[in-house]
Amino acid sequence: MRYFEEELERLKTQLLAMAAMVEAAIYRSITAVVQKDQTLAQSVLRDEARINQMEVEIDDLAIGLLALRQPMAGDLRLITAALKINTDLERMGDLAVNIAQRALSLLDAPSIKAMIDIPHISGLVQSMVRKSLDAFVHKDADLARSVLASDDAVDDLRSASNHELISFMEKNPQSIRQGVDLIAVVRNLERIADHSTNIAEDVLFLVKGVDVRHHAEMRQE
Amino acid sequence: MRYFEEELERLKTQLLAMAAMVEAAIYRSITAVVQKDQTLAQSVLRDEARINQMEVEIDDLAIGLLALRQPMAGDLRLITAALKINTDLERMGDLAVNIAQRALSLLDAPSIKAMIDIPHISGLVQSMVRKSLDAFVHKDADLARSVLASDDAVDDLRSASNHELISFMEKNPQSIRQGVDLIAVVRNLERIADHSTNIAEDVLFLVKGVDVRHHAEMRQE
Repeated sequence: MRYFEEELERLKTQLLAMAAMVEAAIYRSITAVVQKDQTLAQSVLRDEARINQMEVEIDDLAIGLLALRQPMAGDLRLITAALKINTDLERMGDLAVNIAQRALSLLDAPSIKAMIDIPHISGLVQSMVRKSLDAFVHKDADLARSVLASDDAVDDLRSASNHELISFMEKNPQSIRQGVDLIAVVRNLERIADHSTNIAEDVLFLVKGVDVRHHAEMRQE
Repeated sequence: MRYFEEELERLKTQLLAMAAMVEAAIYRSITAVVQKDQTLAQSVLRDEARINQMEVEIDDLAIGLLALRQPMAGDLRLITAALKINTDLERMGDLAVNIAQRALSLLDAPSIKAMIDIPHISGLVQSMVRKSLDAFVHKDADLARSVLASDDAVDDLRSASNHELISFMEKNPQSIRQGVDLIAVVRNLERIADHSTNIAEDVLFLVKGVDVRHHAEMRQE
């Protein structure tokens, strides 16, 4: 039993190490867009392989724990939540790579007004990521619920930014490629927010033992 | 033990029922874009809740099976693969909803040459989806590997279609919104292909017990 507890602790530690790498990748990819920083964008591309490898290791660890013994209700929920959060983190890492690629494509484009929105949206998204992971660490259902509440705000910001970028492109057809890149950056941020929401839902399942996915009315409980 | 086998069979049956709904949603969303069919697009939006509910039921069934007894190596791999495939299917359903929303936005737009590519890309993507699910049903590693091989072709088609749509928008700034919608349709198709790739990788893990994710060299084995 001692061994099982230690392995469970190792699973959590590894998941948090992966989360730290993914958070850093998101931060650097957005900074690369806003500051037109090629080196930073390339560092995100370089770290992708390491994040992918961590995903495989964490999955192996979790499946090994399921095989080792029949875990009790709470431990079983922790392990299945870890499997799901692991998948979400890896996808968030992929999205940071997408953003970094757009940053490289945008290096030579002039700064435009619509870019002012990006630090704003990304600030909100990064705080959702942080809160969903803190909620996991501290098994904090209230914090997890606050992440779900932010999701609509991100959708609204994305939609406003899309309209602004489309009218910018209509007025400046020579900058259409830049506009398409920026729409993609914002969409990738929105998808990162969606994965934070998934993590927050997994935390609620972990803490409460109830499944809140697709049940908006239960989220406000 | 008999009970366990029956429940395992039920898990597979439910997963395939969900897969059938998701495949139908993808097919209808693309047909709605190409044929400008509002009723079809709305039917995809209507089915979303049912697909979401199936995801929750399948997860419950799989986690229940893990709790019921310590499954043996092969059964454990089947159950964890089912959990992952379930997540992928639900996301594919979300992507079909995204495409259906673009179909509604495109209802009044004139047909343009770039739309000819969409049935082509979607034919390839739908065949990847079908093959990845057939590979799961028949535990067919060769079929799963053929899905991984198609992924690059989809990326190439998407990239060509993007270039074409961007020059279309540059020449027709009054159609930028339509171009942005069509870029989004193609990108959603590409993401559906990515999820098929995930499923194929899970099938290889299930059949071979090796993890091929992020190991391109092993995929060609």
